[in-house]
Amino acid sequence: MASVPSPDRVVAALDLGGTKTAGALVGGDGELLVRAERPTAAEGDAEAVFAGIAGVLDELARHPEWARIGALGVASAGPVDTAAGTVGPVNIPAWRGFPLVRRIAERVPAPVRLLGDGVAVAEAEHWLGAAAEYRNVLCMVVSTGVGGGLVLDGLVHPGPTGNAGHIGHVSIQWDGEPCPCGGRGCLEGLASGPAIVRHARTAGWRPPGGCSATARTVADSARSGDGAALAAFDLAARALAAAIAGAAALVELQAVVIGGGVAQSGSLLFDPLTHHLTQYTGLPFTRGLRLHPAHFGTDAGLIGAAAVALRSS
Amino acid sequence: MASVPSPDRVVAALDLGGTKTAGALVGGDGELLVRAERPTAAEGDAEAVFAGIAGVLDELARHPEWARIGALGVASAGPVDTAAGTVGPVNIPAWRGFPLVRRIAERVPAPVRLLGDGVAVAEAEHWLGAAAEYRNVLCMVVSTGVGGGLVLDGLVHPGPTGNAGHIGHVSIQWDGEPCPCGGRGCLEGLASGPAIVRHARTAGWRPPGGCSATARTVADSARSGDGAALAAFDLAARALAAAIAGAAALVELQAVVIGGGVAQSGSLLFDPLTHHLTQYTGLPFTRGLRLHPAHFGTDAGLIGAAAVALRSS
Repeated sequence: MASVPSPDRVVAALDLGGTKTAGALVGGDGELLVRAERPTAAEGDAEAVFAGIAGVLDELARHPEWARIGALGVASAGPVDTAAGTVGPVNIPAWRGFPLVRRIAERVPAPVRLLGDGVAVAEAEHWLGAAAEYRNVLCMVVSTGVGGGLVLDGLVHPGPTGNAGHIGHVSIQWDGEPCPCGGRGCLEGLASGPAIVRHARTAGWRPPGGCSATARTVADSARSGDGAALAAFDLAARALAAAIAGAAALVELQAVVIGGGVAQSGSLLFDPLTHHLTQYTGLPFTRGLRLHPAHFGTDAGLIGAAAVALRSS
Repeated sequence: MASVPSPDRVVAALDLGGTKTAGALVGGDGELLVRAERPTAAEGDAEAVFAGIAGVLDELARHPEWARIGALGVASAGPVDTAAGTVGPVNIPAWRGFPLVRRIAERVPAPVRLLGDGVAVAEAEHWLGAAAEYRNVLCMVVSTGVGGGLVLDGLVHPGPTGNAGHIGHVSIQWDGEPCPCGGRGCLEGLASGPAIVRHARTAGWRPPGGCSATARTVADSARSGDGAALAAFDLAARALAAAIAGAAALVELQAVVIGGGVAQSGSLLFDPLTHHLTQYTGLPFTRGLRLHPAHFGTDAGLIGAAAVALRSS
């Protein structure tokens, strides 16, 4: 980050996802001073979803440091529109163009800053994580979906409406399966957790008795040497390599940082990914691309939201 | 461009391609005051290639305005390394890590600035062409190869070594044909002029008697209603649409500007491209992407090199 915030400052951070809404008061050094959490009523009406945020804000407001916050950053599942201050998360149907910034601002005595969840991960990793030493880096989340955020020329690049970094909807198979986004052969459909399960099933894998079919179960089978499960991770890794190499050709990257549930499979994903990246990054300026596991786990959204709040307060 | 250069200034510009080396003295308003050109001895040894540049520089140096130049910008076929001042154009085998900036600087009484040819097109179009009104735009050249340059947040984004914008080597078919770059299914192999000829041949097209098989001949056949020729342009347009939509998802673009020989086919390319872009850009923040033909033709490299020289003088 361009400027190092002083550690005695305090901001508030929210991270709104399809499953839960997390909030925190965060110090200028990135320390979470207090944390609150509510389930997200993702299938409820617009006000039911907002009630979770209100509950988190009420809980944070009871902390003595609340009065001192310089700003509040809110990371939201996308797409977002940071210019308009609205959000329309894919997995929260009742929110389309929901005026999240205005609604939060009514309850918070400080400026409110909105960012997408992929951009938040880039903010977090670039401030205090695995991307800190790089000026040009793509930070990715590979989980139920595939998302990300870009750091270019030493600064997080949110784009005009805060949605840059959506690598999950880069097509790596132009004539492939239709994607809900309207495109075809998007990375998300080939490398997400559900995609890994699908690859494994196609190769003959079945979840062990009593287990549900998730990327984690596939990972367990792969660790036991199951060929179909290993092939599924290899396929996802190759898809990721193709998309990452394309991103490196397009914007010139020095490194890529990968987090999220699927990335927690560790070497099951990173070993084949390293192999395939070597194949796809053959241009002189992409050849040296570095690969790192993310530093932050589930707190990345809060830390990233705090980074933006600190910069604007 | 951030600042408008004053029209009474003069810079020198070079554009080094695999076929010819062009040079000019350029006024602060972008007017070419004098122009010189030599064939590029692309298959010759390193010094034979440089002799073409030396000839162009000698010719420019005879002009009375030469003594006033504030800087020289040189656009080169890529890849380049602007940090090192070296170039290694794919189609000039004798130049690998050739110290182009140092060699030119020995002959020029002013600072020398190197940029890639795709970045040069973005500089030209953003300064005085079709990209002038946009802050986030991809400028492309679709010709024997496919290249480009990016404008992000109102500034041309060359990347750390000057190679950002290489959209021709974005993979849109991760399991497709091997590309000389090391990847597979790169856009260049599906949408360049030679690719269009290949698509047409595969669909049964043959060049009219006595004609050579080029994208221009395919275009002539398509204008006469030849189904295979029309299908070839449609295929290339669809490949372009997939890659452009992916770029828009990754960096958030407001527009794409397309020039180069294939783009001169006009509606043969732009009509199907508009159609396919509508399919692939389904995300809320990619949906409004605008498409424009380039303003500059063969002078784009010189104008772009002049833009950089003017900014640094």
